[in-house]
Amino acid sequence: ELRLYLEELHHADIAEILEELDLDDATYVIKILNTDKTAEVLMELDEDDREKILNNLTAEEIAGELEEMDTDDAADIVAELDQNLKEEVIGHIQDEEHADNIVELLRYDEDSAGGLMAKELVKVNENWSVTGCMSEMREQAEYVTRVHSIYVVDNKDRLKGRLSLKDLLTAPSDAQISDVYIDKVDFVSVHTPGDEVARIMQKYDLEAIPVVNEMGKLVGRITIDDMVDFIKEEAERDYQMAAGISEDVESSSSIWQLTRARLPWLILALAGGFISVEVLGTFDSAMEKHGELFFFVPLIAAMAGNVGVQSSAIVLQGLANNSLRGSLLNRLLKEIGLSLLNGAVLAILLIGGGMLLLGLNFEFGLTVGVSLVSVIITASLIGTFVPIILEKQGIDPAMATGPFITTSNDICGILIYFSIAKLILGF
Amino acid sequence: ELRLYLEELHHADIAEILEELDLDDATYVIKILNTDKTAEVLMELDEDDREKILNNLTAEEIAGELEEMDTDDAADIVAELDQNLKEEVIGHIQDEEHADNIVELLRYDEDSAGGLMAKELVKVNENWSVTGCMSEMREQAEYVTRVHSIYVVDNKDRLKGRLSLKDLLTAPSDAQISDVYIDKVDFVSVHTPGDEVARIMQKYDLEAIPVVNEMGKLVGRITIDDMVDFIKEEAERDYQMAAGISEDVESSSSIWQLTRARLPWLILALAGGFISVEVLGTFDSAMEKHGELFFFVPLIAAMAGNVGVQSSAIVLQGLANNSLRGSLLNRLLKEIGLSLLNGAVLAILLIGGGMLLLGLNFEFGLTVGVSLVSVIITASLIGTFVPIILEKQGIDPAMATGPFITTSNDICGILIYFSIAKLILGF
Ligand SMILES: [Mg+2]
Ligand SMILES: [Mg+2]
Ligand SMILES: [Mg+2]
Ligand SMILES: [Mg+2]
Ligand SMILES: [Mg+2]
Ligand SMILES: [Mg+2]
Ligand SMILES: [Mg+2]
Ligand SMILES: [Mg+2]
Ligand SMILES: [Mg+2]
Ligand SMILES: [Mg+2]
Ligand SMILES: [Mg+2]
Ligand SMILES: [Mg+2]
Ligand SMILES: [Mg+2]
Repeated sequence: ELRLYLEELHHADIAEILEELDLDDATYVIKILNTDKTAEVLMELDEDDREKILNNLTAEEIAGELEEMDTDDAADIVAELDQNLKEEVIGHIQDEEHADNIVELLRYDEDSAGGLMAKELVKVNENWSVTGCMSEMREQAEYVTRVHSIYVVDNKDRLKGRLSLKDLLTAPSDAQISDVYIDKVDFVSVHTPGDEVARIMQKYDLEAIPVVNEMGKLVGRITIDDMVDFIKEEAERDYQMAAGISEDVESSSSIWQLTRARLPWLILALAGGFISVEVLGTFDSAMEKHGELFFFVPLIAAMAGNVGVQSSAIVLQGLANNSLRGSLLNRLLKEIGLSLLNGAVLAILLIGGGMLLLGLNFEFGLTVGVSLVSVIITASLIGTFVPIILEKQGIDPAMATGPFITTSNDICGILIYFSIAKLILGF
Repeated sequence: ELRLYLEELHHADIAEILEELDLDDATYVIKILNTDKTAEVLMELDEDDREKILNNLTAEEIAGELEEMDTDDAADIVAELDQNLKEEVIGHIQDEEHADNIVELLRYDEDSAGGLMAKELVKVNENWSVTGCMSEMREQAEYVTRVHSIYVVDNKDRLKGRLSLKDLLTAPSDAQISDVYIDKVDFVSVHTPGDEVARIMQKYDLEAIPVVNEMGKLVGRITIDDMVDFIKEEAERDYQMAAGISEDVESSSSIWQLTRARLPWLILALAGGFISVEVLGTFDSAMEKHGELFFFVPLIAAMAGNVGVQSSAIVLQGLANNSLRGSLLNRLLKEIGLSLLNGAVLAILLIGGGMLLLGLNFEFGLTVGVSLVSVIITASLIGTFVPIILEKQGIDPAMATGPFITTSNDICGILIYFSIAKLILGF
């Protein structure tokens, strides 16, 4: 009766239940469910949980699950398997076309349109007659969960356009497809990056988009449910990257996974810390006459870090959305203007507050205030232009935020601060 | 001919062009396009750009645009208008039902299901006959861009289920809707928060979801294209919040807007900086004998800040995805374990590196190393539990990252560091 109860549930709900169970129970549940249900459940699981369950299944059992899946999902799962197991599993897939499709999809980068698309779609040849293609279409549609659009191709399988179901139904029965199809259709290439696909689908409110290869042949289709997953994952990845977490982890990940994701950035920050120790060491002559200078180091470093992160976040979003416009000079002037405005307000607060609350003298207040403005300008320029330069060099600019920006701004900030202090106070 | 050229373009592309033009040219383009096109273009524009263009149109012209829009988009635009203009514009809408629908949608919070839904949908009464409802459905479908699902309601308009087009077409012509409909349908309430709607639609791969009111009446429908926009905006908002940017700004926003979004967080960081000055001041007796202690302040503060941001990012994502499981005690033990592991590695690097590169003596290295481990543990606990506590108090936990966490961790870190140093080195 457990089985009957589970069969009633949506596969996404079963997956949530499985993630709560221990491995033996989860494997048991997977084995008692029938394969088309398990196939769907497996797709919804976290990669880690799935890996553990698949380890308890034979290559034949895994192949059985793959038969029931859409090609995009099957390819994603095969890609996670070890090389040996991969070949064994593919060899066990009965449906040869399905196996071929999976192998084809494995060729593409997982974050490209090719890696996101499925082979399941409905297409008709422009030379077919309207009535003639009906049974062919019905057959194709059986393998496709949601039809969305009927694509039109020529004899060489090149994408020509799409067909609306309405046009098809109202067309005279002796018409050819080429008479009734719409020759305007959005499409992407197998190599289009996933975030570009997302941008296009969002902009034109598409629920599916066809994918063509280098020769313009229709080779697959991306559906909006998979793009929603992609958009969510990308956003979480960017968010984590900005927080100094470089692998896809969650609160439930193991200590070992979390360490692998977090420690590298902390080591970077530690290395930066060493440099700041050295920088401060070179100004140790200030300690005797102006020891209070050292009390303001965390304040200066914090402002540098925060300003840098703010600037880099805005530039990174602009780069990601393809919405960064205007010349670099304009951007430079704007950042300097913004920094002067913010810096002036903060410097006044700092000098006023410092003199009133901390009893600083004016010369010292001025030193700290001038430093603050300079540090803010520098930090905002670093935060703005490091991502832009990385992007131009073909390096992922998303690295240039979080720990990287705060660390470099800490060092620059401290250096600027003590240099200005030395100029004004002289030590 | 400009008009003909533009009419050919997709409205999302026209919107992109308009954002490049100056206001007069943009208004000119809007005026020469016919209203159903302009209505779509207006929807695609940024809020700021749209506001400027609408200022150049009369209430009657705006009402004309609204007539062409879906109710969800029209309501969003009306909500942006000044109170007086709002009433005038609504008064000019000819189609009374459309106006009523817009007014109804204005009642809901913009981030709730009610604020995201449109009134356009196709529904049939369970008591109708299959043949009888065809013409009614066709009429409704005229106002709906994509039908997706046909919803079934009872005599009181309460949502009962949905109808698949296939079932409808294959049903015997004398059947009643109640004989053929599917009584399982996912739905949300008007008050369901947008991110919960997003979670449900993503989980079940839905392209549309019906919305019911407090009495279970079907009052609207949310489509996936609007959810994709919502998911993107939410993700950008969260990303900006984590970077200390509290309004929706872009790289193209004005210096004034950027200042309003960024300065409050910088003032918070400045206030934190004042506290750290005070804290360091209380330990100034250390300066004479152990001045080098001050050189390590930025290192300690940076590690505290980075660890805190990492921990808070993971917890915040867990809270947002509703995937935070297990007891608080387990979470506490895990964070401590993780911090001990990371802290130990970093402390060894710090002590080793400090002795080799900076020529520290062992006692001093030990002081800094022990402090580092303690600071990392504290920072990760603050980063983990402050968001959880805020969430429990009903406060948006997303505030507890970025500047807020780095500032509080800077202060705690410095306090812990000097307290431990005082204990070990004695000054
Ligand atoms: Mg999991
Ligand atoms: Mg894939
Ligand atoms: Mg859109
Ligand atoms: Mg839209
Ligand atoms: Mg798919
Ligand atoms: Mg990206
Ligand atoms: Mg704009
Ligand atoms: Mg709305
Ligand atoms: Mg999904
Ligand atoms: Mg899915
Ligand atoms: Mg809509
Ligand atoms: Mg949120
Ligand atoms: Mg810092």
